[in-house]
Amino acid sequence: MRSMSFAVVRELVLPNGRRADVVGLSPSGAIWIVEVKSCVDDFRVDQKWPEYMEFADALFFAVSPQFPQELLPAETGLMLADRYGGEIVREAPEERLAAARRKAMTLRFARAAAFSLQMLADPDIERA
Amino acid sequence: MRSMSFAVVRELVLPNGRRADVVGLSPSGAIWIVEVKSCVDDFRVDQKWPEYMEFADALFFAVSPQFPQELLPAETGLMLADRYGGEIVREAPEERLAAARRKAMTLRFARAAAFSLQMLADPDIERA
Repeated sequence: MRSMSFAVVRELVLPNGRRADVVGLSPSGAIWIVEVKSCVDDFRVDQKWPEYMEFADALFFAVSPQFPQELLPAETGLMLADRYGGEIVREAPEERLAAARRKAMTLRFARAAAFSLQMLADPDIERA
Repeated sequence: MRSMSFAVVRELVLPNGRRADVVGLSPSGAIWIVEVKSCVDDFRVDQKWPEYMEFADALFFAVSPQFPQELLPAETGLMLADRYGGEIVREAPEERLAAARRKAMTLRFARAAAFSLQMLADPDIERA
């Protein structure tokens, strides 16, 4: 995603309380969510992926090359990941967010990134 | 600003090419810009403050207690800063941004914060 000029934040809590593994924000404001699944069991215990889709223009799963891809839902995109990065194998069907939700998600992304940055740059300062 | 739950980013480049010292983003999406002036000369050489105001709901100057406050424009708010933090002495008259500009600024803030975070957390990765 970085090579596509997305800015990314990890572990972003969504308005419904779920925690997205990776959220990407494109130069034009598109919001992608990537859920990383380390193995089949990891995928099977978390069947809540429609709840991520509600907050993104596109939802991807990122799995290793060994993962049985036929298990993954067709409504989602697919990235293959290894320790060196990821590549998109199948695009996600884009379902554009409504304006109010995009605004709320962009604000959430912005504040989460800035707070994380403050914590890293200035660990003595409480969030208050 | 942190005590008011603003998320902040430093040195944000605005759409007009100027660099804002501090940009704050409130929980509801309000955007404040704070220009820090170390001394009177620093203030006098930079008379471009209306160009910051165009991209914020409110513009503040932050100065030390010794700064002659009568030099500062009435259209801006005032913060007194020392090494321990800052406090608002005079609120800025709020001039609400138009929706499209707020959207563009929020996106700019979000991506800048996320890229800075990536650089700090993962300095080996190029922005690409």
